[in-house]
Amino acid sequence: MIREWKAQLLRAWPAVLVLLLYLNPIAARAATDSLPSWNDGPAKAAIVDFVARVTAEGGPDFVPVRERIATFDNDGTLWCEQPLPVQLFFVLDRVKALAPEHPEWQSEEPFRSVLAGDIKAALASGEAGLVKLGMATHAGMTTDEFDKIVTDWLATARHPALKRPYTELVYQPMLELLAYLRENGFKTYIVSGGGIEFMRTFSEKVYGIPPEQVIGSSIKTKFEIRDGKPMILRLAEIDFIDDGPGKAVGIQKFIGRRPVAAFGNSDGDQQMLQWTAAGDGPRFALLVHHTDAEREYAYDRKSSMGKLDKALDEAEARGWTVVSMKDDWKTIYPPQK
Amino acid sequence: MIREWKAQLLRAWPAVLVLLLYLNPIAARAATDSLPSWNDGPAKAAIVDFVARVTAEGGPDFVPVRERIATFDNDGTLWCEQPLPVQLFFVLDRVKALAPEHPEWQSEEPFRSVLAGDIKAALASGEAGLVKLGMATHAGMTTDEFDKIVTDWLATARHPALKRPYTELVYQPMLELLAYLRENGFKTYIVSGGGIEFMRTFSEKVYGIPPEQVIGSSIKTKFEIRDGKPMILRLAEIDFIDDGPGKAVGIQKFIGRRPVAAFGNSDGDQQMLQWTAAGDGPRFALLVHHTDAEREYAYDRKSSMGKLDKALDEAEARGWTVVSMKDDWKTIYPPQK
Repeated sequence: MIREWKAQLLRAWPAVLVLLLYLNPIAARAATDSLPSWNDGPAKAAIVDFVARVTAEGGPDFVPVRERIATFDNDGTLWCEQPLPVQLFFVLDRVKALAPEHPEWQSEEPFRSVLAGDIKAALASGEAGLVKLGMATHAGMTTDEFDKIVTDWLATARHPALKRPYTELVYQPMLELLAYLRENGFKTYIVSGGGIEFMRTFSEKVYGIPPEQVIGSSIKTKFEIRDGKPMILRLAEIDFIDDGPGKAVGIQKFIGRRPVAAFGNSDGDQQMLQWTAAGDGPRFALLVHHTDAEREYAYDRKSSMGKLDKALDEAEARGWTVVSMKDDWKTIYPPQK
Repeated sequence: MIREWKAQLLRAWPAVLVLLLYLNPIAARAATDSLPSWNDGPAKAAIVDFVARVTAEGGPDFVPVRERIATFDNDGTLWCEQPLPVQLFFVLDRVKALAPEHPEWQSEEPFRSVLAGDIKAALASGEAGLVKLGMATHAGMTTDEFDKIVTDWLATARHPALKRPYTELVYQPMLELLAYLRENGFKTYIVSGGGIEFMRTFSEKVYGIPPEQVIGSSIKTKFEIRDGKPMILRLAEIDFIDDGPGKAVGIQKFIGRRPVAAFGNSDGDQQMLQWTAAGDGPRFALLVHHTDAEREYAYDRKSSMGKLDKALDEAEARGWTVVSMKDDWKTIYPPQK
């Protein structure tokens, strides 16, 4: 019986080869297929060249699959962060939704300004004010409850200018890049200053990134048994800020090994890119530069949110890849559903 | 050409089927092959039954692969924790190695007792003393340096009674269980009170668990650039204690979803098992009960380390699986190399 199968296998060898190639999930695919929303140019060429080198078995830059870790900032790198980061729109909407239970907010800043629709005044309260708003909207419930609150909000909220759900305002070229890296054996992570539990509600569905590969800022939590039911409560106390140097710290804490590729768009990503680029062997560091005022937003050195200044200088000095959204991307967002 | 291949494929169908089955990494395998070091009995039967149910596509208990998260305590669950947890032996050896640089330790407790070989007196200094010892041996270096210190120590240290490297004193039946779960699409995690960076030095080699699937206790760290080189420094400050209720908190923080199966051996694992078992759908909770004074150690309710008391009561009340090492395991450790 075995001998018979062997003979059949030999006869069917071309067909089996095709089948095996088709089944091999990490076979390198032609980049022209994998990155259709990228214009040909130095950025796309650098990506394709890097992937080809680290996946070339026996080559000098080969990286084993287990080491193929790629980390992505979220706000401004994977999805739109203007005119405000999405999570801030969530905060503003939640303050309005919760206001009936908090009559004291009518006279207490920064709540008063939020309720009066004066976002500029609310933001003028600085970091202390932002923390107050964050805790009032992110703490005081279980993790399961928070998950539901965010999921429900994302299902109905719309970008003020573009009138689309925020989860559709993700960058099509970056979705392709995530998929392309995964096809080539990379494990893709989010490493963002945004809230870890906030992002986990949509990361798998929108980016194909499971919750266990999302790293973000967090508040403390507490395990408790209430009426015989175990739950995890979200406390009004900051646990970890996953931004700037915190991104390198967060990567070591959660992943425990250094990425070989990192992708960001602001000075808050500078240390993640430094930490990644300084490892031994082939490394890749990329910055998305928001240069497209027509199709998206144009901002960099003077921006109050998503500022790209020191990291841009370092990218130029070290030869990190800088993507010009205007020149390098054929499209910005996926087609409207 | 395509039509020809199709015809060949049809002819070779039996052979291709065999090939596909062989290639399918998550095909359920017969448990009799996968758990050879487990005696037939209720514990083994419960494991095999659970895996069969959650992997039966279309069945009422089917769990999709992405949800198949299994968490394992380490000390006393995956490897030997007697007469002292391995990491404590590391601490004692490091204090001796570092003593020449610290003449003040000759008169300072608990260092004095450690250097005098009086471990009992050193442990009598309680938690404050342990923290002192921990910080003196785990902080004040970069993450890369610490990794090398632990790796070098594990390569030469030997268990005082069994005279084997600690990384060989892992439980053979649990190695088989880890592999069996992974064959069935599970992602296996360590969730331990032990140090996260300590365990990450050997988890992949010894258990097949990559560093990003290791959750443990940690100290704070700091990103710094020294002489142009980015590094992460280990600070003498506790960041997170991954024990007791902290295990449920750690799971939510690092994984962001609830395990469907959890494995422990002490009261420090009780909340992890509660959190796991209280989820919707099929759940599995297991305790390793150290009942084998001859081949390993026998300890439970009165033990000063690895105490199993309240969790054992809860296991009996809730029908969690309890493994008797004496009765359920054919062998304890892998054969000597």
